[in-house]
Amino acid sequence: MLDIWSHYPNVAQKLNTVSSLINEHLSTDKPDVKQLLADAAQEQGKMLRPGLFLLFSELGNKHEQSEEQLLKIAASLEILHKATLIHDDIIDDSPLRHGVITIQSNFGKDVAVYAGDLLFTVFFELLIDTMNGTTMMKDNAAAMKKLLFGELSQMHARFNQNQTIENYVENIKGKTAELFRLACLEGAYFGKSSSEVTQIAASIGENIGIAFQIYDDILDYTSSSKILKKPVLEDLAQGVYTSPLLFAIAKDPQAFAPFLDKKQNISVAEIKKVSNLVHKLGGVKDAITFAQSYTKNALVDIDKLPQNEITISIKKLTNSLLNRKF
Amino acid sequence: MLDIWSHYPNVAQKLNTVSSLINEHLSTDKPDVKQLLADAAQEQGKMLRPGLFLLFSELGNKHEQSEEQLLKIAASLEILHKATLIHDDIIDDSPLRHGVITIQSNFGKDVAVYAGDLLFTVFFELLIDTMNGTTMMKDNAAAMKKLLFGELSQMHARFNQNQTIENYVENIKGKTAELFRLACLEGAYFGKSSSEVTQIAASIGENIGIAFQIYDDILDYTSSSKILKKPVLEDLAQGVYTSPLLFAIAKDPQAFAPFLDKKQNISVAEIKKVSNLVHKLGGVKDAITFAQSYTKNALVDIDKLPQNEITISIKKLTNSLLNRKF
Repeated sequence: MLDIWSHYPNVAQKLNTVSSLINEHLSTDKPDVKQLLADAAQEQGKMLRPGLFLLFSELGNKHEQSEEQLLKIAASLEILHKATLIHDDIIDDSPLRHGVITIQSNFGKDVAVYAGDLLFTVFFELLIDTMNGTTMMKDNAAAMKKLLFGELSQMHARFNQNQTIENYVENIKGKTAELFRLACLEGAYFGKSSSEVTQIAASIGENIGIAFQIYDDILDYTSSSKILKKPVLEDLAQGVYTSPLLFAIAKDPQAFAPFLDKKQNISVAEIKKVSNLVHKLGGVKDAITFAQSYTKNALVDIDKLPQNEITISIKKLTNSLLNRKF
Repeated sequence: MLDIWSHYPNVAQKLNTVSSLINEHLSTDKPDVKQLLADAAQEQGKMLRPGLFLLFSELGNKHEQSEEQLLKIAASLEILHKATLIHDDIIDDSPLRHGVITIQSNFGKDVAVYAGDLLFTVFFELLIDTMNGTTMMKDNAAAMKKLLFGELSQMHARFNQNQTIENYVENIKGKTAELFRLACLEGAYFGKSSSEVTQIAASIGENIGIAFQIYDDILDYTSSSKILKKPVLEDLAQGVYTSPLLFAIAKDPQAFAPFLDKKQNISVAEIKKVSNLVHKLGGVKDAITFAQSYTKNALVDIDKLPQNEITISIKKLTNSLLNRKF
């Protein structure tokens, strides 16, 4: 779990139960699959999506809420996220995720394909258990679809030096922001907030998600692999060109072409040169300004919510998420 | 579509509409994904699952049925099947499926991972559209889970010469028979048959599915690649040991060990020798008898249904499916 949640003891306490629920739903007595699912459960990420969901659920009317339903939906969000990560790691060929050996590198790519599918099924089971018959089922399917369109579009844009920043934003809206949007939307909805608050929550979630992904991309250019717990600038070698690079390319495309034309054959030394160029041409600075514009959108929306201690917490979290070094 | 359906004009006609529905649900205006989904839609299989579903739906009360609902559920079954095939082809590294180039060999394995996921999402959307709030949602999630457990167990059993026939049946119950079971169960349920008929339908579907898969495995030892439209005995080289081989191994394990111990390094000539041994030791004959026992189970169950022209069709189909050369 992310350290950040220790500042929100109410959420942190519930997240512990969510972790247990995830373990429970990913346990089986089938001997062939047991270890695989246990490993998928064990790898604990930042729990950002269930945390946001729980925080937003607190905006609503406590007396109308079902604690059990809320905890299970929080678990569903993390399990959907885990499922996509397992499939992402196949595509990225990643040996590590959050410093832990990935399913694909431990069990092989073949097993990882089905393991991700299995987690989609557990996600689906949790939805049926908690919201069968509600319109939110449709929102979940739509979110999953948008997420996959984002991943596929990003894949399609690989090694494309002419990619626009608009295209990049469209892709991260799908691959990252959509799940943040869903988490906040569902938090408000199942927390029994008004439909007005629910719509604002969705918009806040999307803006936090976009800003979060841009910051993630920035950290790739500013952080060390020790802090990030993953190889730095791996995305670049795989042709995923993110906002700091895209802003810098826009200023001087010719400077980058000799390096990027090498595609996956770019060397570590050349990656360093690209990174230095990105900094020199102000790509990182531009990306920070760009991310801040989405943070600002989120903060403007937060101000539209009924002001109370929960709204203050949401505001605090939004600011701290987007000033992180991890 | 399978030629067999031409003998059931009512079902064949509806399957044409199901094909259109599949095309419609797999079309998008997203340029990056358009061709990929079109290819996934285009590859038309035997349409066995939607065909069985539609045939079983005819057992029920026509006046209580929704034609639109039935056609969409039929489409959902084929789309779930397609999703699993796309992921299977990644694992099998198959260049062809039903004589057509696979998604993974056309677009790359990475795209195929997400393409399969996307089809799971479309399946999910169709369920929400047709049965949100019903208990059948749970049956669908359970079927998908059992299917994946079957695939993972089969993968776990690869190259295991000591695998029992019971273990093999357990795996094909998941990976193949579960979807047949679901098709017949849903056909009866949404066709508005009684709960008694629905339970019998599920059992018929499972037995047809098991027999179908055993025959599929037998064809691998008896058919030519031209008729099967795929390389013969590919399974064997990949360590998937099916019933004809398992029955033969049980009779003389030592005869097979020198070949099978080579695992994936087995040569084409050695595969031929293994196939000859399987025939010589009566493995194919034993497998046929074994498949027939499941066909018989299905026929016994069919006789428990109210006898009418639909039941006769179901019986005819069961017999012809399991005497096929394709």
